[in-house]
Amino acid sequence: MSVTLLKHCASDLDVVNAARVSFAKRSEELQAGDEKLIRFLLNNRHGTPFEHGYFQFHVEAPLFVFREWHRHRVGHSYNEMSARYVEIPEEFYDPEAIRAQHGKPGAYTFRELDSTASYGTRLKIWWARVSMRRQNKRAFKVYRRLLKSGVAKEQARAVLPVAMHSQMIWSCNPRSLMHFLSLRNAPYAMKEIRDLAAQAEAAFKEIMPITAQAFIDNERTAP
Amino acid sequence: MSVTLLKHCASDLDVVNAARVSFAKRSEELQAGDEKLIRFLLNNRHGTPFEHGYFQFHVEAPLFVFREWHRHRVGHSYNEMSARYVEIPEEFYDPEAIRAQHGKPGAYTFRELDSTASYGTRLKIWWARVSMRRQNKRAFKVYRRLLKSGVAKEQARAVLPVAMHSQMIWSCNPRSLMHFLSLRNAPYAMKEIRDLAAQAEAAFKEIMPITAQAFIDNERTAP
Amino acid sequence: MSVTLLKHCASDLDVVNAARVSFAKRSEELQAGDEKLIRFLLNNRHGTPFEHGYFQFHVEAPLFVFREWHRHRVGHSYNEMSARYVEIPEEFYDPEAIRAQHGKPGAYTFRELDSTASYGTRLKIWWARVSMRRQNKRAFKVYRRLLKSGVAKEQARAVLPVAMHSQMIWSCNPRSLMHFLSLRNAPYAMKEIRDLAAQAEAAFKEIMPITAQAFIDNERTAP
Amino acid sequence: MSVTLLKHCASDLDVVNAARVSFAKRSEELQAGDEKLIRFLLNNRHGTPFEHGYFQFHVEAPLFVFREWHRHRVGHSYNEMSARYVEIPEEFYDPEAIRAQHGKPGAYTFRELDSTASYGTRLKIWWARVSMRRQNKRAFKVYRRLLKSGVAKEQARAVLPVAMHSQMIWSCNPRSLMHFLSLRNAPYAMKEIRDLAAQAEAAFKEIMPITAQAFIDNERTAP
Repeated sequence: MSVTLLKHCASDLDVVNAARVSFAKRSEELQAGDEKLIRFLLNNRHGTPFEHGYFQFHVEAPLFVFREWHRHRVGHSYNEMSARYVEIPEEFYDPEAIRAQHGKPGAYTFRELDSTASYGTRLKIWWARVSMRRQNKRAFKVYRRLLKSGVAKEQARAVLPVAMHSQMIWSCNPRSLMHFLSLRNAPYAMKEIRDLAAQAEAAFKEIMPITAQAFIDNERTAP
Repeated sequence: MSVTLLKHCASDLDVVNAARVSFAKRSEELQAGDEKLIRFLLNNRHGTPFEHGYFQFHVEAPLFVFREWHRHRVGHSYNEMSARYVEIPEEFYDPEAIRAQHGKPGAYTFRELDSTASYGTRLKIWWARVSMRRQNKRAFKVYRRLLKSGVAKEQARAVLPVAMHSQMIWSCNPRSLMHFLSLRNAPYAMKEIRDLAAQAEAAFKEIMPITAQAFIDNERTAP
Repeated sequence: MSVTLLKHCASDLDVVNAARVSFAKRSEELQAGDEKLIRFLLNNRHGTPFEHGYFQFHVEAPLFVFREWHRHRVGHSYNEMSARYVEIPEEFYDPEAIRAQHGKPGAYTFRELDSTASYGTRLKIWWARVSMRRQNKRAFKVYRRLLKSGVAKEQARAVLPVAMHSQMIWSCNPRSLMHFLSLRNAPYAMKEIRDLAAQAEAAFKEIMPITAQAFIDNERTAP
Repeated sequence: MSVTLLKHCASDLDVVNAARVSFAKRSEELQAGDEKLIRFLLNNRHGTPFEHGYFQFHVEAPLFVFREWHRHRVGHSYNEMSARYVEIPEEFYDPEAIRAQHGKPGAYTFRELDSTASYGTRLKIWWARVSMRRQNKRAFKVYRRLLKSGVAKEQARAVLPVAMHSQMIWSCNPRSLMHFLSLRNAPYAMKEIRDLAAQAEAAFKEIMPITAQAFIDNERTAP
């Protein structure tokens, strides 16, 4: 599971210049006061100045993570490995930590089972991990047998688990990235997508430090 | 697997009136010449007059079908059953026909194995169906055991196959529906999504007969 | 200047059912607790359940208002009267009240000149209104002369003022409508668009009373 | 009137790599056969591989041109000079050539009046140009007087003509650029926007020569 920045064309200055075109102005470099402007734009939900930039990532993750990712539609582009075209390699979600779910929808909390706890708990963790791994390995075995016997890839893959890894090229702009982060690098987000969102946020922070910090300080509310 | 129209607010007249507002005109009912206008708009890729309408569907299909569906972003809205919130019922893709894949990417052809053919072929079909069904049943069994032992739903579901059924509310407008149909009710589309797209097209045809026919006659090229 | 609801297909129940499909549930009518659910969704920025509905409006307003309107892109569809196709009728913005602008960008305040004030102020108002009206009337006169002499409509209209009225068919969904209202029925919005946004909000309130009230109570923050 | 490329992050290779991720493949440079792949994608309306790139332009043009531009919603971002914030400088559309309009809507043809023709035609051209220029100059004069007397900028600008120049930052991706070009660098497009679209196409051609040529050869049908 990884998020890798492939290329980008984005800067804090682009935000400032997109905002300043309202006044028919343009700067060649960031100036004192520009951080204040960026914070003003973010806190008052002036979103459009944050659209003039570009990030291209490579993402590798399990399908159940991609399914959440692809629900982001506006300002997001995807091209993904196709199970209709290629034989899916045997790589799948194999978690070290097992967690339990508590509470009601909309307010779930998750608690990781403590791997240093009682024998019973350790056994439970071990058993869950082995069950998942074994089941997923079996799925790939059946998949390969189906392929071998001549079943079409797109039909044979039906047995593969949502744990299977996929990969994609993902493009977005600073605004759509912030929307993604506001929902996915958040307390109620699923742990697996949150870890990846945090990687994307690290890249964002490096390339647009002022914007990213203002976004984080504003409780990750996307403009 | 099914597509059910839940509600709609769309008509051929809305297309005509959206186009006629260019001339500051509006009609209360369809007139002679309006079919010609609709065909002109479609054939010349004037797309916006086809956005003023609404369809709401309920869809039930396997995940690998939903994954293609959700790639349609513009003018499409989705809300889907969540494996984070509910225990997924044991319903999955269980195909009667098995098909083989021939040719190269971009030009695949698929041939269904003939269930009235030689003993060898019939055995192959039988074996493929049984393998898939057995593997998918096993996945649900492991899933339920993981849930029972206290593993969080969102983590346990990782073993479930992309064959599992899901359900969603899907909203679109006549233009975005035509885009969907142009790609999914098409020769190179995957059979499973094509069958469902054909159901959506049937509803489209009933509600907007002139537009739907013009679209089909124009080789399903969406404007 | 007017906003007229032409048709719609939207209800509070649709929001609830879109949200409940996450749990594979569906209701035939609103129930106790549904208002709470709608408020929860709105306050926690769960936006997608508000996309499953449809509004179609007819709008008549000056061009400078349409220019702000058309900046709303996602979930908004427009078809407008075309100055390339028709001769624009002589209807234009002719304000009763004249206002002055104070303060700095991002924090402007506007104060209407008091028509019951001193002779000087009343004269100023009268003069401003007459100047605008006379200039705009002259523009239409020149426009018609250019047309008469054979200049193409699309070229002759270049002299027409942004005060000129236009009309359009506007389609949106509850979520995109709330985004529009959050920016346009707001203290810093331009008065002319705010008045029209208030008309659209009144229609929204009638059709989806629970959602609209929850939106207003949440300081018109769109989900 | 001008279109200036400010920055970009786009290449033919990005298209190829976005397409190849379907096969879990990636190249470091263009290879023999990649042109064929790009043409295949374009001709068969595989649009998404063309979304992984970025162009940022500065555009200066009359309002009636911007109004058409801003109707492009998907994959297009804009920030424009604001007549609420700044005093609009006296720059406006002042055409050298005057054209007449013939035919019916949907099939208009335009013919430029010949400036080397009869005395009558030359007089007509001269008169049209002078009328437009004079009227527009008068509008700016009234505008400035209104401002001077204390009328708010956003209200005073109502007298300004759609001939007035504005400026904006425009961002798009290769796919949305091609959609724009397919409609605006086209025979039925308005001359003023077509001239600017041709400038944008020239930049496109320089940065993505293979894609741009394939697009042009495919009769500028956007995928």
